[in-house]
Amino acid sequence: MSEIRKDPASTTWVIIAAERGKRPCDFAEEPKAEKGATRGKSRPCPFCKGEEVEAPFKTFAIWPGEIDKETMDWRTRVLPNRYPALRPSEELTQGEMDDFYHYLSGVGGHEVIVESRRHMDSFATMGRNQLEAVIRTYCQRYNYWRNDPRIAYVLVFRNYGLAAGASLAHPHSQLVATPLIPPRLSQELEETKIFYEQERKCVYCEMIEIEQKSQASRQVWENESMFALCPFASRFPCEIMILPKNHSAAFDDLSDQEIKDLAQILSYVFKRIAAVLGDPPYNLMIHTAPIRTPGLLYYHWHIEIIPRITMPAGFEWGTGIYINVISPEDAARAMREAKC
Amino acid sequence: MSEIRKDPASTTWVIIAAERGKRPCDFAEEPKAEKGATRGKSRPCPFCKGEEVEAPFKTFAIWPGEIDKETMDWRTRVLPNRYPALRPSEELTQGEMDDFYHYLSGVGGHEVIVESRRHMDSFATMGRNQLEAVIRTYCQRYNYWRNDPRIAYVLVFRNYGLAAGASLAHPHSQLVATPLIPPRLSQELEETKIFYEQERKCVYCEMIEIEQKSQASRQVWENESMFALCPFASRFPCEIMILPKNHSAAFDDLSDQEIKDLAQILSYVFKRIAAVLGDPPYNLMIHTAPIRTPGLLYYHWHIEIIPRITMPAGFEWGTGIYINVISPEDAARAMREAKC
Repeated sequence: MSEIRKDPASTTWVIIAAERGKRPCDFAEEPKAEKGATRGKSRPCPFCKGEEVEAPFKTFAIWPGEIDKETMDWRTRVLPNRYPALRPSEELTQGEMDDFYHYLSGVGGHEVIVESRRHMDSFATMGRNQLEAVIRTYCQRYNYWRNDPRIAYVLVFRNYGLAAGASLAHPHSQLVATPLIPPRLSQELEETKIFYEQERKCVYCEMIEIEQKSQASRQVWENESMFALCPFASRFPCEIMILPKNHSAAFDDLSDQEIKDLAQILSYVFKRIAAVLGDPPYNLMIHTAPIRTPGLLYYHWHIEIIPRITMPAGFEWGTGIYINVISPEDAARAMREAKC
Repeated sequence: MSEIRKDPASTTWVIIAAERGKRPCDFAEEPKAEKGATRGKSRPCPFCKGEEVEAPFKTFAIWPGEIDKETMDWRTRVLPNRYPALRPSEELTQGEMDDFYHYLSGVGGHEVIVESRRHMDSFATMGRNQLEAVIRTYCQRYNYWRNDPRIAYVLVFRNYGLAAGASLAHPHSQLVATPLIPPRLSQELEETKIFYEQERKCVYCEMIEIEQKSQASRQVWENESMFALCPFASRFPCEIMILPKNHSAAFDDLSDQEIKDLAQILSYVFKRIAAVLGDPPYNLMIHTAPIRTPGLLYYHWHIEIIPRITMPAGFEWGTGIYINVISPEDAARAMREAKC
């Protein structure tokens, strides 16, 4: 059973989860093995169609995900993570050690969202229908966890490539449901609230408006309801933020039209990231409101995509300041001009 | 010229430094090349003794560092970083873009501290005299930057190994002097101040006292004036914190005895990290008070060492919470029991 510990001298929380160290890795030792056609498949892939018999996950499938109406076969699947950082079976308790250290029991959820039947699919190659099925699956899982009173926050994220922390190559995302609001979100909520109180506007709505007018051109693309840009303070080369144009605090409030538009802009953005950086490893994170506060006026959900071609090192760890060697203006131009 | 940009919706700052992208890398593409005897030296090493003629750095040497009294040759050298993130030649100015985005000019310092004449030295192999010379050099550089009125904070850090962000193999640290107090420090200052106001004690002094008495044994080693432990909320396997036992907010207030003891505990700790994890890549960061506030009662300088054998991925980036698969209690025991 894991423990969620707080550092007494900072706002850092850590999940101590010794069992998670035992999970298998698909990728060979050389980072080259992680890309495209050479992505490893040294044992039966537990996420592949046709290999469910081998897959110890099968019996744990908790939701069939989206069904393909033509073949009646699954499009997406949701499985509990076999090496979970947090578990729903635990009771939520608080503890204290030596009258000084504080921790919570490791209660929560940790799921895998298998995004395609095809082992070699990626967000750059997936069809729009498949991407829409993935987005609907995310929404369904947010809705599921919204009903658990122990849960304060749900994060959906995607690790792509060994250098971005992926241990299995088959296209998948993960969901972690936590009993506390994570520090990264608390900070965003605090800052966006200050802006709202001063300006009576959502800072992200203002950002979209400014980026549409700005001469600096950090905009990457937009469609009817979605907007993609390289943020003014991009921490990583070709970092991308995708936001809904209409103010909305919670990701799972997406309308049908917004789901279609989000699938379209994800496809656009990932084809361009692959073209500009050559299929790089990346992390994708959905930032959305804590689950008890869906209607916040000052928060606006968004997706962050960070290609992992440079590495935070001592300076970043010691200061929390990032050094980025490619300006977001140059990155956005390269992506707009990429031939796909 | 670089720019220090603030994200409008969080406390994140980013240095946009396009020129830094051009720096060379010693290491071959395979991560194997980064360790021990195979560490690359494909071109003359600009930090090596005897190769100064080749080194474009020579004419820029700003301080000879420590001199070996027997040979009258240098022990350590301080050079400006050739690919600096920040430059002392700039004026400190604030800017605004589109009435919305804020930035500072890229003013500051970025230095390299060459820690030995020997290309293959490391903190695990260096003699204690050499480590003392390194520590004295750090102190000297803090003192130098203390006199620059534009500077608010000085970070000394060390990247070891390609996977920890080192681009050159020769033993060296870096120093970055910034015109703002970094968010990581602001958070620590805020939390430690709250603890002090509630308890009238420094949280780190309290931590040392508790760890000395605790049954949980996160202590790694101690000598007369220094203490090494695996923090209760360790973010990484075998993460280490080293603190002075006597309360002190500023690293460069070290006494002669403390310098000797710090060299001894660094040597002890790095031999054990190498024994337990097999010469892993790591980052080392000195956390010290902002330079205008050396006498703080609530802050206590310390060194953080984070071995980079696991990788923060989407979950860590999205939440700011870390998952650690080795408990600090297990890590501390392994280090105490290691044969060196």
